[in-house]
Parts: sequence; C-alpha cells; structure tokens
Amino acid sequence: MYTHINNDDTIIALATPPGAGAISVIRISGKNSFKCLDNLFYGKLKISEAKTHTIHYGKIVDENSETIDDVLISVFKNPHSFTGEDSVEISTHGSQFIVQKIIALIVQNDVRLAEPGEFTKRSFLNGKMDLAQAEAVADVINSRTESSLRGARNQLDGLLSARVEYLRKSLVDTSSLIELGLDFAEEDIEFLSIQQVKGKIDEIVSEINELLKTYSFGKIIKDGVNVAIVGKPNVGKSSLLNYFLKEARAIVSDIPGTTRDVLIEELQIDGILFRLYDTAGIRSTEDAIEKEGVLRSKKAIKESDLVLFINDSTMEFDEDLFIELLKIKDRDKIIVLSNKIDLVERQNFKSDVGISSRTGEGIKELLDLLSQKAVSDGNYSERSAIVNNIRHYESLKSAMVFLANANESIGNKMSGEFIAIDLRNAESSLGEIIGKVSSEDILNNIFSEFCIGK
Amino acid sequence: MYTHINNDDTIIALATPPGAGAISVIRISGKNSFKCLDNLFYGKLKISEAKTHTIHYGKIVDENSETIDDVLISVFKNPHSFTGEDSVEISTHGSQFIVQKIIALIVQNDVRLAEPGEFTKRSFLNGKMDLAQAEAVADVINSRTESSLRGARNQLDGLLSARVEYLRKSLVDTSSLIELGLDFAEEDIEFLSIQQVKGKIDEIVSEINELLKTYSFGKIIKDGVNVAIVGKPNVGKSSLLNYFLKEARAIVSDIPGTTRDVLIEELQIDGILFRLYDTAGIRSTEDAIEKEGVLRSKKAIKESDLVLFINDSTMEFDEDLFIELLKIKDRDKIIVLSNKIDLVERQNFKSDVGISSRTGEGIKELLDLLSQKAVSDGNYSERSAIVNNIRHYESLKSAMVFLANANESIGNKMSGEFIAIDLRNAESSLGEIIGKVSSEDILNNIFSEFCIGK
Repeated sequence: MYTHINNDDTIIALATPPGAGAISVIRISGKNSFKCLDNLFYGKLKISEAKTHTIHYGKIVDENSETIDDVLISVFKNPHSFTGEDSVEISTHGSQFIVQKIIALIVQNDVRLAEPGEFTKRSFLNGKMDLAQAEAVADVINSRTESSLRGARNQLDGLLSARVEYLRKSLVDTSSLIELGLDFAEEDIEFLSIQQVKGKIDEIVSEINELLKTYSFGKIIKDGVNVAIVGKPNVGKSSLLNYFLKEARAIVSDIPGTTRDVLIEELQIDGILFRLYDTAGIRSTEDAIEKEGVLRSKKAIKESDLVLFINDSTMEFDEDLFIELLKIKDRDKIIVLSNKIDLVERQNFKSDVGISSRTGEGIKELLDLLSQKAVSDGNYSERSAIVNNIRHYESLKSAMVFLANANESIGNKMSGEFIAIDLRNAESSLGEIIGKVSSEDILNNIFSEFCIGK
Repeated sequence: MYTHINNDDTIIALATPPGAGAISVIRISGKNSFKCLDNLFYGKLKISEAKTHTIHYGKIVDENSETIDDVLISVFKNPHSFTGEDSVEISTHGSQFIVQKIIALIVQNDVRLAEPGEFTKRSFLNGKMDLAQAEAVADVINSRTESSLRGARNQLDGLLSARVEYLRKSLVDTSSLIELGLDFAEEDIEFLSIQQVKGKIDEIVSEINELLKTYSFGKIIKDGVNVAIVGKPNVGKSSLLNYFLKEARAIVSDIPGTTRDVLIEELQIDGILFRLYDTAGIRSTEDAIEKEGVLRSKKAIKESDLVLFINDSTMEFDEDLFIELLKIKDRDKIIVLSNKIDLVERQNFKSDVGISSRTGEGIKELLDLLSQKAVSDGNYSERSAIVNNIRHYESLKSAMVFLANANESIGNKMSGEFIAIDLRNAESSLGEIIGKVSSEDILNNIFSEFCIGK
C-alpha cells in the first residue's frame, strides 16, 4: 500500500461550511490530536485522558489566558475514527473569526493545516475504505437529487468495489494457475487448459462489458441530464416552462451558480436532475451577432443529452427548423412537442407528445417521456454496481485492452507467459479503481478535488 | 419566569452554516429528542439508551429502509445540554440534500422546525443563562475582530449581568426597607432614613451613569468605527490606502456584502474594526447629478464616527473644503492629514499628522491616532462591564428616569409609598436587561434576530 510522506503529521481544518451559523466544527487528526490541546483546553479533564466517543465541555484559552470560546470536544481514539487515527472534533460558536483564532492557536502545537481531501485520503491510506469508496465521499457531499445520492451511497457502500474486487481476484486466480502450469511445464502438468483460460477471460470480459454499459446511466444519475429547449419565441415556451416547474415532482432546491447563461431552470423528475437550457435560433443568418448566437445554440444542442423541440399547434409545423435540428442531433434524442393543443380540434402535425400549458394536458406524459429517454441506455438500478466515474471507466477500458491482448495471444498460440502478463496487467487496471494499485499522482488528482476539511 | 406555550415541543434545525462542506450538524432539543430517532437510526444501541456526552455511529434510514447517510450522533441528557433539555446533534456528510432529507424524516416524529434563536431562547427559559448572556451568543457568532469578540465574551461570561443584578438587588433592598418602614409607620419605627434612601439612590444613579458612559465604547468595539475619507482625487488617496492596508496590524479577512457602495476597505487597528468610506466632493455645484453626490457625501460624513481629511503637502491647504467640513462635523472628529510629506522640505500648513505613502513615514502615528480617537469617549476596557446593546442602554435610561422621579418625590417630601413605587419600577427596568422581567414581545424581538439553529 502507498504511504504518504506526511502521514505522521497531525492535520487540522474547518469541517463545516464557511460562514456564520450556530456552530462550526474544526477537525483534527493524527497522533498529536489530543496533546495539542493540553495547554489550550480547560475542561473537567484533559482530552488526552478522555475515552473514545465522549464529549467534553470546556474553554479554549489563548497564550494570555484569554478565553476564545467555550467549546465541546468530541474524542475519537484510533482506530475508531473516520481517518483511523486519533482524532477530535471541536464544536465552536459559528463565527469565522473564532474558528480562525482557534486554528491559528492549535497550529502552533505541531499541527498543520490539512490539504483538500486529506482526512478522506488518510481514511483510505489507513484501510478504512478503498479508493472507489473514498471517491464516493465527495459524491455523497455533492449529491443534490435522490438518484445522485443513491448512486453515491451505492458506491460508498462498496457495491462497485465488491464487483471489481471479484473480477480482480478471478484474474489473479487465472494468471496464478497459468504461472503454476509454466513452473510444472516440464512435468507436463497442466492446471488450466487453454480452453479454460479462454472461458475465464470471456466471462470476465463480459462482466466488465456489463459494468461499462452502466456508465451512461451512472453519469446521468450523478450529473443529471442537459435538455436543450428549441422553439420560436411565440410557441409558448415560457408558459410551458412555468407549468412544467409547478408540476415537476420535485424542484431542485439548491441551485449553485452556473456559468452557462442560457440555463433556465433545474428540476427533478423521478429523482433525476434535469437542466433546461434555452437556445437562441439556429436558422442561417447574415447578421454577425446573430451568427455568433446560432453557433452557440448549435453547440449547446450538440452537447445536450436531450432536445425539447416546441411547436405551436395552431401554426404550421416548423419543418425547416426540424431539418436543421436533425443535422446536429439524432432523432431519438429529440422530443417533438406540440403546445397549445387545447386551442385546436385536431393536431395538424405529428408530435411525440401534445400538451397544453393552460389545461395541463400532456404534462405528465412529457415528464414520463423525459424520464424514460434519460435512462433509455440501460436497465440498471441504483442498487446494483454502477460506474459513474470517468477514472473507473478508463481503468475498465484499459483492463479490456489487456484482456483483448490475452485473447490474441491465445489465438496466436503464444506461450502462457505472455497470457499471464496480460492478465496481470488487466488485474492491475482493475486494482487502480479500488486503490490496490495507486500512485501519488493518482491520489493527488483525486483528493485535490475534495473540499478542505473532508 | 416567562414560559413559552410551545416549550414542550421538540425542535430541530441545521446548526452549521448552509452550503457544502465536509460535515453538517443537525441539532434537536426537547423531550422527544431521543425517541424521534428510534425508527430512523441504526447503530450499536438505541439513542434513548445512550449515556449523556457520548457519540454513536450508525445509519439514518428512511421508511423504505434506504440508507440516507451514515452519521455520528452526540447525546446530551437534560440538564447537561446547551438548552438544558434532552438534546442530540447529528453529524452528517455536508450535503444540503442529505440535511433536508434527514430533517424531513425526523419532523414526522413529533418534532417541529425550530424558529430563529429558539435553542438559545430555551437555554434562557430553562435558566442556563440570563437574557443579556443569551443576546451575547449572537454577538459572539457575529464577532469579526479581537475587541468585538472580547466584548461579546465579556457579556456572555456575565460581567454586565453581574453588575446589573447587583444594582437591581440594591434597589430591591432599599424599596423593601422603605415598605417595611411604611408597615411599621404607626409604631414610628424607621428602617431607613430619608437621607439614607437618598444616599442609596445617588449611589445607584452614579453607577448606572458609569454604565451608560460605556455605551459608545461598547458600540465601537461591537460594531466598529466608520471613517469617512475626504480629499480631492489628486491628493494621493489610493496610494495612501494601499499603504495603510499593508501596514494595518490585521486586515479583516471576512468581509460580508455591504449595500454602501462607497465602502473601500475594512481593517483592524488594535483589534477594532475600521470601515473606510470614500466620499465624493462636498463643494457646492449646479450640476444635478453632482448635487445628489454632494448630498450623499454630506450624509455619509455626518453619520461617520471619524473623518480623515487628506491634503497634498505640495499644494495649498484646501481651506474651502475644510470650512465646508466643519459645518457638518466637530473638529475633534476630524483628522487633518498631510500626505506626500517626503516631497516637501517643510509643511506649509498645520495638520494633525503628516504622512508619506511612499516612505511610510507617519503611518504608525496615523494608525495610533485613529485608534485613540475611536475610543476617546472613555477609559474602559473590554474586561469590565460594558453596555453595547441599544436595548440594555434604553433599559438603563428608563431606570434613570424612575430614579429621578424618586429623587423628585423625596424633594417634594412625598410619602414613602411613591418612592418605593419608583424604585420598584427602576428595578423592573434593570430586570429587563437580564430577563428577570420580560414579555413575549421582547423575547420574540431578541430571538428573531438570531439565525435558525442557534
């Protein structure tokens, strides 16, 4: 297992979001966690004498015996902590000023500021969780919908890890038997026939393929679905959107700032996050400014997961626009919508769904259609192993390449040694996912994406 | 003591700042605090069986047995909690989505959302702290400088409360003895001579006066000092400010959004917060837009605590502007500054301080002068009882009115009954400060200013 050069340090960070609140929590982990408080904390007993999982009231006092705050200190003794190390959590009044003062005091006692994700990294390094689980900690924190939370929990609970570990072990077993066979080659003892090896590889390839197929579903439940809205201004876009948002089964409550200025709204349908983007026209134009708008719209449509093409039932079907649209998007990613169906006797053009934002007719069908199209790529549930992380996806792909090599070696009747090497490489690729194999670079990449304090 | 009709309810709120972070803490208080978790929390033991001040790891599970999060629950048994009631803190992964889901689950079990400040209100109602101390909780949270924190802690630690309680008891004793004298009037027994009563009243009046005098200092350490900067654009304002900020003993790190668009910078000098405001010209003008600017500047100068009037040593002293300034501000609230003194042999006009933002000369003197002027109103220290709250100030003022009435009654040789009533009223005014006397309205006013979760 990889060891970090600073793993012996004691680290500190604010663990709660910054800003004013009733309380803030400062987290410390490492061998000095208790000792560093000896001259700062005044309570009924010393923290170094406290039992694990107990809470202690007292005052944090500075070098001039000035009380900075009265706090509650929670004590966690190694290995019974998140990181697996001795650890404390200091619950203070929720002032940034107090938090800064306390951290500034404690870092004078052989404690340093934690790097982003360093607590979780230690949890991984100390064997409290594997790497895929550690990555899921960030996903859990960032989850904003039912399905993203469930997907992240699924990974944190180890469903993917268990699957990957099973496949990795199969590869280890297979290559070991091949290697054993090589050792006993002169005695003509074969532990695994070449047919058996091929069977094993095919089985593993098929299982990895299943995992790879879950990726687009995994990405959707993790990151949500981008829907580009296309339609002329007079087709009733805004009234539709209003109705839509009112009817959507759950509106996403916490919308962080977005840099895409065309974002209209976010909503949840069946626990999946949908982001609706408005697009300007995509018709050819000579005007320079409009041209730029057309380019941007086309790009947005290309990058979207689905397109909602809104037409007015009382008008002619917008054939030209539809043709333009089909040039940049597959038909099955476009939902053709006819709005204002309450105003016509009978639709005079074919659409995937007809709605009225006045009467509400068709809205439920539209929501269902969006939800179906979003997860059309697979029949997966958040309760089975899902790949939702590009790093895991790439590692699985890389394992597939090595397995293909192995199959080729078999086809070319090459020595078992070559096959065993390919299998070892494939095993190593799978090991990367759960952190059996990892480099400082990989770890830094992963944990630098975390917030400080986690 | 005042009792709240809903004091029997169990309340819940997010206690940490909203937003994403490593962890969030949800606080529950009231008699259902443990029971409400019985069907939601799965750990080694039931929370209702846990000892006080212990921490328990487990999972919060919804009605479909879906894990929402793995959490740590801290248990506080009445009266050993902040509120004095049974109470728990649930430490979750720092996602708003998870927090909302958990709160939504728990409120189904006879728990309701807490109102702003309701935890602190309960702490007061349950006798864990008096009202002035409860108010100080919000001040501690909002403190952003050394001195504001110290002032708030001073009040939280009960320095003002002790002083007020001492004065209140003196009034109770005096009025009791007067009333006793009235009961025994027929026997001609006097427990306190009218001279003794007068002496007592004068003593208390003088002590309240001392407290009242601390108010402007208290306000300054709590709220900071507003400094209006006046001077023509070419006097070197911006280079001075840059130097100033570099040299200031501590720059305030966390600047919340301000609506006053002329705010340049905040800094700390000797632990006191200074807010520097730039002002446009204040010279008479005919231009309508400029006129509006002049009005705004004059208003800003009038409302400021201090004025920094910057002049260029290489130019003539700006006599006209100074005369305008003196019309709206007292001379002792103006610091006349000559900048660029490194460029002249000898200053050709008199200033309070000469500085050079190029060489740094005079900057220390300026910082000292600002600090002195800010606290010129008194010789108080944050370690003695200080009044920093308008409500306390008004109550002290009201007590003073009743005591003046009592003195008038004595002068008019009125019956002891009248004097006793005045003293009882004065006592009641003092009682309001620490919450011996309080109405639902007063409490609502105070706690509605708190954040939810405190």
